[in-house]
Amino acid sequence: MRNVMIAASAALCLSAITLPALADVQPCEERSFMQPPLFYPGVEKLADGRVTFRFCSKSAKDVRVLAMEVAGVPTGLDGKPPGLALSLGDKGYWSATTSAPVAPGVYTYAFKVDGLRIADPQGTRFAESFGGPQSIFEIQGPETPNQFYKAEVPHGLVSLVEYNSASLGGIKRRAHVYTPPGYEAGGKERYPVLYLVHGYSDSDDAWVQKGNANAILDNLIAAGTVKPMIVVMPYGHTPERAGVQGMVNVDFGADLHKELIPYIDTHFRTEAAPKTRAMAGLSMGGAHTLQFGLPRPDVFGSIGVFSIGLFGDQVTAYASANDAGLKARAKEKGPVFLAVGKEDFVFPSVAPVRKIMDDYGIKHEYEESGGGHTWINWRAYLEEFLPKLFR
Amino acid sequence: MRNVMIAASAALCLSAITLPALADVQPCEERSFMQPPLFYPGVEKLADGRVTFRFCSKSAKDVRVLAMEVAGVPTGLDGKPPGLALSLGDKGYWSATTSAPVAPGVYTYAFKVDGLRIADPQGTRFAESFGGPQSIFEIQGPETPNQFYKAEVPHGLVSLVEYNSASLGGIKRRAHVYTPPGYEAGGKERYPVLYLVHGYSDSDDAWVQKGNANAILDNLIAAGTVKPMIVVMPYGHTPERAGVQGMVNVDFGADLHKELIPYIDTHFRTEAAPKTRAMAGLSMGGAHTLQFGLPRPDVFGSIGVFSIGLFGDQVTAYASANDAGLKARAKEKGPVFLAVGKEDFVFPSVAPVRKIMDDYGIKHEYEESGGGHTWINWRAYLEEFLPKLFR
Repeated sequence: MRNVMIAASAALCLSAITLPALADVQPCEERSFMQPPLFYPGVEKLADGRVTFRFCSKSAKDVRVLAMEVAGVPTGLDGKPPGLALSLGDKGYWSATTSAPVAPGVYTYAFKVDGLRIADPQGTRFAESFGGPQSIFEIQGPETPNQFYKAEVPHGLVSLVEYNSASLGGIKRRAHVYTPPGYEAGGKERYPVLYLVHGYSDSDDAWVQKGNANAILDNLIAAGTVKPMIVVMPYGHTPERAGVQGMVNVDFGADLHKELIPYIDTHFRTEAAPKTRAMAGLSMGGAHTLQFGLPRPDVFGSIGVFSIGLFGDQVTAYASANDAGLKARAKEKGPVFLAVGKEDFVFPSVAPVRKIMDDYGIKHEYEESGGGHTWINWRAYLEEFLPKLFR
Repeated sequence: MRNVMIAASAALCLSAITLPALADVQPCEERSFMQPPLFYPGVEKLADGRVTFRFCSKSAKDVRVLAMEVAGVPTGLDGKPPGLALSLGDKGYWSATTSAPVAPGVYTYAFKVDGLRIADPQGTRFAESFGGPQSIFEIQGPETPNQFYKAEVPHGLVSLVEYNSASLGGIKRRAHVYTPPGYEAGGKERYPVLYLVHGYSDSDDAWVQKGNANAILDNLIAAGTVKPMIVVMPYGHTPERAGVQGMVNVDFGADLHKELIPYIDTHFRTEAAPKTRAMAGLSMGGAHTLQFGLPRPDVFGSIGVFSIGLFGDQVTAYASANDAGLKARAKEKGPVFLAVGKEDFVFPSVAPVRKIMDDYGIKHEYEESGGGHTWINWRAYLEEFLPKLFR
């Protein structure tokens, strides 16, 4: 958010685009605190759909842009240096342009300057993640019309909730909470609740900043295909503690069940019953859902697990540790939805989960999409999952 | 927010402190995407109250920490290089320690690495501002007990509101909105509203991230000295447009009066009347308040102007342009509060405003504090202003 920000107005546009165009900007230069800040487009969508990344530094020797999900930008997963190299050009700016048009989507990016990762100084949208804040740009397109903010539909709100967790020694915890359009006007209406958890490298802002979850909810509620609901996005990490693993995080489970759910049910107008409470998550958040949601039909009537399963020893350990809960789940009718991409590195971990479900007689829907461990898939899975809820 | 974050628990502590202590961390090294991230304390409060800043880079040649409000850290306002130089030390980390204990407060900081400003990669709290995100750390202390989050009082929520501004060509705009404890539980109770605007280099997150406005509200409401209220924190900038000045920003005024206020009054349970609507702001936000609040007693019954006045030609232009509004204001009884620090570079601009008020017979309270153009003052002014409202 800054005074050079303009918003999406065309059907296909780059909502994070900054003004003015390069033709109008001052040359790259270092400015002191007392000088007006320098404005330039850090991300610019070209007429042909390609995207130019731009950075101002007078002293850098090597500037790259990291953007894992932008096709053609090296990810580094193959061991080669990640990112697209920028070169010095017009008006003293570093820049690089993608070799092909960038598909509509929401993209995380950062610059790597002489080895140092930095969010776009000209950016207007950020997400908190390991290694500091990352920048985000969005390209809207007709292929996934429900995944972008639409001016013409009523909008819910996203709130930052802080609560104290006695289960975690009294620390302050944060969650993002989506309330549906009209909620803040008051009244007595109560709503079902989805608990939606992020992945390992992200924070509780990710489903909003990278996932556009609030826009997806707004659009599907407006279309009448999704029931108005509250969506609670917990913080998926807990302080490091010996013996607690990230993928079987009992501290997260204790905080969720003993602290966050009671907090939400006493502070928001929820329908506080298993039938009207769901849990879903992606990657690590999906692991949390397998551990603390699926075996708890007494709390969560509906379950979604995106892009994660169980690995190696976890498989038998999971079933034996959760035997009673899995038997109880088999008696319930609420939807259980699994989704994973064929190219995802966790793909092999999902079949063992499906086998456990089959062994226990837990009915579930399974979506095997293309693609990998990406937000492209997670937004699509959420869009597919939401209409199944609270029927 | 990340899994190394711990929260404030002692009476005097560094709430942004990260775990583990340096004794337990791995040496500074570059890590690839597939390696676990490196954790180290980027900000560490020492037992004697001094603060150590720490940064990991294997290739940097010059690392400084910028922290305008931390006493002893060069600000750069005198033309000398800003920031405190870090040096290479234990385990390959760059570090620098303040020469004296750091007073309790909320501090914005960033690293400057070979000339490049970067938020703390280990940070857990950020604010959006010109030049990209900045990091924030907080040191709690008994001197200003109402300015910090307290676990034991009921907490309001901060929501991110997005709305479309027909007055600004249909762009999407954002505001932060504080709702008081209990608001989300529903009911029919309606609340007065304060519109509270940030300064030039900040965004609509600043009153929360740097100002702890939500904590101040929580604490004073719990103490019974402030009425439960909604606080709307607008985005103070508008897209650049020829002829529109930042300090007489008619686009901001149009958006505020024609878009944001109607949006808030239709989406929240407000007491929508001048007597129960206030406007205040700091620096540029105070200028907005002088322009679009003070001369509008038909909209805002109460006014607060922090750390800003009128300069040069503005003085006569302001009075003549707002003659009718100022006459109308003189007939109202709602509080008008001005505050500025004696060392503030805008200090001389406040006397002309007071003279205009005296000329028009506008009663006002005037607080002349120590200090300068700082959040230390703005938090204090807010704490002083809030109890005057809606009596």
